[in-house]
Amino acid sequence: MAFRTPIKVCFADIDNAGIVYYPRFLHYFHLAMEEFFAGALGIDYADVLHERNLSFPTVHVECDFRRRLRYGDHIDMEVRVLHLGRSSITWGYKGYRVGDPGEPVVEGANVTVCVKSDTFEKTDVPEWLRQGLENPR
Amino acid sequence: MAFRTPIKVCFADIDNAGIVYYPRFLHYFHLAMEEFFAGALGIDYADVLHERNLSFPTVHVECDFRRRLRYGDHIDMEVRVLHLGRSSITWGYKGYRVGDPGEPVVEGANVTVCVKSDTFEKTDVPEWLRQGLENPR
Amino acid sequence: MAFRTPIKVCFADIDNAGIVYYPRFLHYFHLAMEEFFAGALGIDYADVLHERNLSFPTVHVECDFRRRLRYGDHIDMEVRVLHLGRSSITWGYKGYRVGDPGEPVVEGANVTVCVKSDTFEKTDVPEWLRQGLENPR
Amino acid sequence: MAFRTPIKVCFADIDNAGIVYYPRFLHYFHLAMEEFFAGALGIDYADVLHERNLSFPTVHVECDFRRRLRYGDHIDMEVRVLHLGRSSITWGYKGYRVGDPGEPVVEGANVTVCVKSDTFEKTDVPEWLRQGLENPR
Repeated sequence: MAFRTPIKVCFADIDNAGIVYYPRFLHYFHLAMEEFFAGALGIDYADVLHERNLSFPTVHVECDFRRRLRYGDHIDMEVRVLHLGRSSITWGYKGYRVGDPGEPVVEGANVTVCVKSDTFEKTDVPEWLRQGLENPR
Repeated sequence: MAFRTPIKVCFADIDNAGIVYYPRFLHYFHLAMEEFFAGALGIDYADVLHERNLSFPTVHVECDFRRRLRYGDHIDMEVRVLHLGRSSITWGYKGYRVGDPGEPVVEGANVTVCVKSDTFEKTDVPEWLRQGLENPR
Repeated sequence: MAFRTPIKVCFADIDNAGIVYYPRFLHYFHLAMEEFFAGALGIDYADVLHERNLSFPTVHVECDFRRRLRYGDHIDMEVRVLHLGRSSITWGYKGYRVGDPGEPVVEGANVTVCVKSDTFEKTDVPEWLRQGLENPR
Repeated sequence: MAFRTPIKVCFADIDNAGIVYYPRFLHYFHLAMEEFFAGALGIDYADVLHERNLSFPTVHVECDFRRRLRYGDHIDMEVRVLHLGRSSITWGYKGYRVGDPGEPVVEGANVTVCVKSDTFEKTDVPEWLRQGLENPR
């Protein structure tokens, strides 16, 4: 079972073509990852950053945009861990339009590297996080 | 003479009503203040933050929006210091549509407080900055 | 009773001073107004824009920022109608930090003008909306 | 020769890890594409949208982030057309840190589909645009 979180397209997400500005989808991915930490791992991402001293800068992203989204659309964003390396995590995202559960409207993945927040020094994914990522709630 | 800097309305600044999303104008004010530091005071705002250890959080803002702006509009944003207190700076902004120099399309002001970047402790506006603000280039 | 809606400070709302970028608070006001339409008036703001052909551009805003907010903070944003004119609505906002219900951390108001979405022609606040604004759920 | 345009990392682009929020790089790509239209094709992108009735929604993007960028960094963003299909355009982007012209700090590509702005109906890349894309200034 993948983790899912609702995201609402807001008024400001729309661009001058009348649809969601495409970089916003990557913001939605990030929002969903933040929710994944709180909801599936039981720790606020803010605490990961500031108390556990871990950050996860993205080194690669790719994404397919299959349908245009408009203001008023609601997204059900699925997050899962696609690959867990020694110091990298590959996240997969599938966004479904609520009320239209067939094909995802957006689908992507990004690779993040685990670093220390204060120095940006690469570090191994710590054991507590590895266990959570392998067995999300 | 007030400092002026050009700002272009970009595709992503437009909201679902087809005009500039109003909070973006406050972002334009901030961009103009950043340019003021570089252009009128001769110091990058990034250096002020990180090397001089000063930040300027906003405690008050007010703004009148006189005309709708659209994608493709160019703004000439005027920045001036309206009031210089012991630890506060009040900034005034007037945005003119390029090619239409009459009434400003947007006009506002914000009050910033001078604090130390690392502790957010309130501090007096230092002499080097006070001199620059009183005599911008 | 004023309408209230929760808003979470997200990772991307933080600026290089480590606190919420102040224009984001006006975005929070807009998010809260969008929720007000859905929650207190029973109509999606997207439908107001596109089906009722009404938009509400802001002509004035003012705001006091009383406390710095950081990533991980949760806001309880109160929205109320301060004044209902013939074609204008003045909205008031008070944001409280969750778990800290005393003084609002941010407090502001904006004046919006009722216009037709397709022509931006000023129009009277229609009766169905006037009734809802005077008697929100 | 590829088209190049300068982009400044601004205060608000920074996230709570102290570096450019990664979705902002895709915004930088879009800004650079907007400048490409004006600078290399001689037509404002706003006019393409509104007067030529053409839009270019993105259907795919991928991007490698090779270095962290911070507030105060200046980027020299290169834009080129990687592939010109019947109704699709693949754009390539390489961002170099100014003063550090070696390896790009960010490198990506996106595929856009040519549609009519008013209906989102797919359409062939028109001849005037095809000629410009094949022979940018």
